[in-house]
Amino acid sequence: MIPTLPPAVSIREVGLRDGLQNERPVSTEAKLRLLDALAVTGVRRVELTAFVSPRAVPAMADAEALAAQAHRWPQLEFSALVAGPGGARRAVAAGIPDVEYVLSAAEGHSQANVRRGVDDSVRLTEQIAEIVHDGGGTCEVIIATAWDCPFDGPTPPERVVEIAGHAIALGADRISVADTVGTATPVRVVGLLDRLRAHLGDCSVGAHFHNTRGAGLACAYAAVQSGVVDLDASVGGLGGCPFAPGASGNIATEELVYLLEDCGVGTGIDLSAAIDAAAVARDVVGHELTSGLSRAGDRLRTAPAATGRR
Amino acid sequence: MIPTLPPAVSIREVGLRDGLQNERPVSTEAKLRLLDALAVTGVRRVELTAFVSPRAVPAMADAEALAAQAHRWPQLEFSALVAGPGGARRAVAAGIPDVEYVLSAAEGHSQANVRRGVDDSVRLTEQIAEIVHDGGGTCEVIIATAWDCPFDGPTPPERVVEIAGHAIALGADRISVADTVGTATPVRVVGLLDRLRAHLGDCSVGAHFHNTRGAGLACAYAAVQSGVVDLDASVGGLGGCPFAPGASGNIATEELVYLLEDCGVGTGIDLSAAIDAAAVARDVVGHELTSGLSRAGDRLRTAPAATGRR
Repeated sequence: MIPTLPPAVSIREVGLRDGLQNERPVSTEAKLRLLDALAVTGVRRVELTAFVSPRAVPAMADAEALAAQAHRWPQLEFSALVAGPGGARRAVAAGIPDVEYVLSAAEGHSQANVRRGVDDSVRLTEQIAEIVHDGGGTCEVIIATAWDCPFDGPTPPERVVEIAGHAIALGADRISVADTVGTATPVRVVGLLDRLRAHLGDCSVGAHFHNTRGAGLACAYAAVQSGVVDLDASVGGLGGCPFAPGASGNIATEELVYLLEDCGVGTGIDLSAAIDAAAVARDVVGHELTSGLSRAGDRLRTAPAATGRR
Repeated sequence: MIPTLPPAVSIREVGLRDGLQNERPVSTEAKLRLLDALAVTGVRRVELTAFVSPRAVPAMADAEALAAQAHRWPQLEFSALVAGPGGARRAVAAGIPDVEYVLSAAEGHSQANVRRGVDDSVRLTEQIAEIVHDGGGTCEVIIATAWDCPFDGPTPPERVVEIAGHAIALGADRISVADTVGTATPVRVVGLLDRLRAHLGDCSVGAHFHNTRGAGLACAYAAVQSGVVDLDASVGGLGGCPFAPGASGNIATEELVYLLEDCGVGTGIDLSAAIDAAAVARDVVGHELTSGLSRAGDRLRTAPAATGRR
């Protein structure tokens, strides 16, 4: 039976943040060039950078410099990732008061990533939400390792639901769940999203997938099928893991746009412009990206390149 | 709502045929080595080769030599692709009487591929089915360009249904639909499969997807969701298109196994062994393959390599 899908999905472009954070740092100018290419695709929401320790993430050390240029694209809604109240203050001061506060649902990943327990991380939501609300912004809590933790194994869905509920109670404006290690698959995706929505009611729940094991777009499709209308994606699939060479990073924006639009789900993003942006991204990082579509082209471009026995 | 999926899916391994047909020809010995690695994965159905013109497809020139060794793996069910009655006779003579007869649903692709119209190709089903039935085998008709043709654009679903009906009437034992150029997406996949099943009743309908634009596994998942239990996949994702360098080929067997098993759908294939087979495939062709999972490893192997900010 043909599934009923929402008429439109809003894609947040995270290439400048999740995509570049594991790359050798690129210049602010190069990021602005990529932003120029992204702006013409029609994407509206852009995660611009992360206000985190420049020692821990050198690729994001120019967060303030980049934020200072955001005014050039008044049509875009910028947000930034933060890992604590300090980052939230920096974001507000830099004029990007809409933040994603990322915390882990799994103890092992939380300790490894921020040397802080999960409950302590959840508690910080209150302070962060207050800071950004005072600054006129919003606080989205992204729950990392929402399906699996590389250290602790599968994350119990009820734990994610509990964390999401706490975060909302502490002031978070919305929730997103992230498949940090790229191990989620469709049935578990739907299982968690159904539970979250049952508990959170009207609160918006977004999703963030990696394509590390090839299942990223299948998970995104399953999420949309289950009613999710807020998805993260990264231009060109930028964002591989430095500890798994050649492994895919985030799902590629242009591949997600292709799939959704072909399924009758609007994204507001022009596919050709998105493919062009992926070429700029490749140029900026100086190596091939994992997006197949950025190389194969969209459907309209297939004819000259086609052979095909079957 | 968590989807109801079939308890098990049968994967046909097509790496030796679709995977290798566009590669520089590899030795029969190398193919046998890959077959050794595949045999221990637990896969049961293997498309061994194609009985087609060695001039057109040099990589399949050793079809008879390969078939002569098939007896070494009595636990495997071998089949072979044919493009006409001559190939069917060769297949039967070589002891591989179970054939896939591939024909195009689109005129443009049919002419470009076999210099024959679609209706003429469909008519040949009768002769081919008779040849293989007389030889104690079966005839599966694979309808290529079932969703899109690189020359003619989208293929009308009703045309595919009509062709499938004719093929069955002419003696085909079952039908498979192939996304030859890797442009299908889930909703169109389900739309065609639903129509086919409505018209063909109990006849088995399989599906064959390419991952060229990243949507291959999403299509496979959608197909399984809609009730398909016969899927093709290729070890390591072997099988890129020579005219689109870097573009993915077939969906990767190990990625499909990972996704399905994690969704509770049995495949009978051991994931670790499948990843090992992908390493052999890479070695055999002498270049990196597109399967992300074969590089990232399965879930159990993630811990040491994990980092992950989100």
